[in-house]
Amino acid sequence: MTIKNVTVLGTGVLGSQIAFQSAYCGFDVSAYDINDELLARAKKSFEGLAARYEREVRGAAGGPARAALGRISYWSDLGKAVSGADLVSECVPEKLGLKRAVYRELGAVAPEKTIFTTNSSSLLPSEMAESTGRPGRFLAMHFASEIWVHNTAEIMGHPGTDPDVYTAVVDFAVDIGMLPVELQKEQPGYVLNACAIPWMGAALKLLVDGVCDPETIDKVWCIDKASEGPFHNLDRVGLNTAYDIYAASSDPRLRAGARYVKEHYIDQGKLGQPTGEGFFTYPPPEASHHP
Amino acid sequence: MTIKNVTVLGTGVLGSQIAFQSAYCGFDVSAYDINDELLARAKKSFEGLAARYEREVRGAAGGPARAALGRISYWSDLGKAVSGADLVSECVPEKLGLKRAVYRELGAVAPEKTIFTTNSSSLLPSEMAESTGRPGRFLAMHFASEIWVHNTAEIMGHPGTDPDVYTAVVDFAVDIGMLPVELQKEQPGYVLNACAIPWMGAALKLLVDGVCDPETIDKVWCIDKASEGPFHNLDRVGLNTAYDIYAASSDPRLRAGARYVKEHYIDQGKLGQPTGEGFFTYPPPEASHHP
Repeated sequence: MTIKNVTVLGTGVLGSQIAFQSAYCGFDVSAYDINDELLARAKKSFEGLAARYEREVRGAAGGPARAALGRISYWSDLGKAVSGADLVSECVPEKLGLKRAVYRELGAVAPEKTIFTTNSSSLLPSEMAESTGRPGRFLAMHFASEIWVHNTAEIMGHPGTDPDVYTAVVDFAVDIGMLPVELQKEQPGYVLNACAIPWMGAALKLLVDGVCDPETIDKVWCIDKASEGPFHNLDRVGLNTAYDIYAASSDPRLRAGARYVKEHYIDQGKLGQPTGEGFFTYPPPEASHHP
Repeated sequence: MTIKNVTVLGTGVLGSQIAFQSAYCGFDVSAYDINDELLARAKKSFEGLAARYEREVRGAAGGPARAALGRISYWSDLGKAVSGADLVSECVPEKLGLKRAVYRELGAVAPEKTIFTTNSSSLLPSEMAESTGRPGRFLAMHFASEIWVHNTAEIMGHPGTDPDVYTAVVDFAVDIGMLPVELQKEQPGYVLNACAIPWMGAALKLLVDGVCDPETIDKVWCIDKASEGPFHNLDRVGLNTAYDIYAASSDPRLRAGARYVKEHYIDQGKLGQPTGEGFFTYPPPEASHHP
């Protein structure tokens, strides 16, 4: 399953970024949108992206970012846009009915070999799989905005996705410079939004309840938690304390989380940073300075 | 309300850090613990902290960190420990009954002028206020571990806290190099844990449900969300999308959050980064590079 030709459906903010990043990494990219006006706008977006890459991406200036523009072609005819496609990244608006209609049309005109990926942020691939006519060759590959900085690709199949197709898409993500995040099952919001939505919601409650203002909340978060993931933070809190917090939750899945922490860590004497080992291992403070 | 003499009750991990940071910033510090063995251990902690400050804090080497050690005295008699105290930082173990008992004893022996602050991370000041015998001079000032890096002080009164006392404590936090986070009302978990607990819980669910592993979750979080607070992230998501997410929540406080976003931002055409203004304002991408 060699991927050389990529078609991006929809040239909005993220669609343009995916198309440009793929072209920048050497792929031939067909940019599809529904009319010539949108394609003209897309062309301007790509020129803007080339300029940003030249300023912000190491090695992009002096040719490479410009060269990427030459690898992008423009199409408003779906059949022509995908006639040579090894992989499609679908970035059409976030409406289930629209996406299903696009997949029905796409499934009818695309070559048999073509892998379909959806960049949907809120729908599950299983909701669209049947419409594609080729569920085994369909899965989600989800990008973050400002793809050249936030270079993550969350990759999530549905139960019917062919494992070899999944692997080919992971390899493609690596080839366009992404960190592939391999989800083992369908999860609304993938990894990032599954964590971010409760986090932003909690902050919003503090604002609505009149506890604190957005500026202060963001500032204190950045001082205390910047560059730290949630599991690192659990280790920092200490796993005994984390257990106490979640064991008392009214949410059965959080109580299951507490039990997991107890069985896999606390019962083995791993309490996070206080003992030097938890989800991750930590050198003693002295050792990190006197190797 | 001049604060010069500080007494720290309890010389555990955070108690020692608060004591040392205060001494490092020029305050006279009385370190109290319940017996001489713990005080001997505290002395070793302070020496370890002095060494870490010398390595990690700009300007601490060559005298200042050592000088801080000379401003700390050691006490196992509570009355003597607080005889000259302008401010007490109480860092005894996180058990309500124990804290109340300590406050009853403290209230009886401390001078009238002394302000009491609790570093409790999970209790509310109103739960302890009466035990102090001086509820007006009592509030919470909560620190994060590795105080010299994570230099935040969350300051939270109960309904009976004297506003002048609150202000004096905010000033003290600034004087020991902290960013004071002023909470306008009592909030379990303050700001940081109120945001971090749902965030860590969501990550724990992904692990327990077999969606993804801790290493990958932390890595993708750090790539995509590093150095970004929750409100900045709401602006990045776009406030229309944020509204859709929280308006559909089963939690009435999150639905109130959605309404707040609509009334204060969306209805004014402020959609976050897509329009350049939301909780914060954003220069257009070009402008930030060509001033």
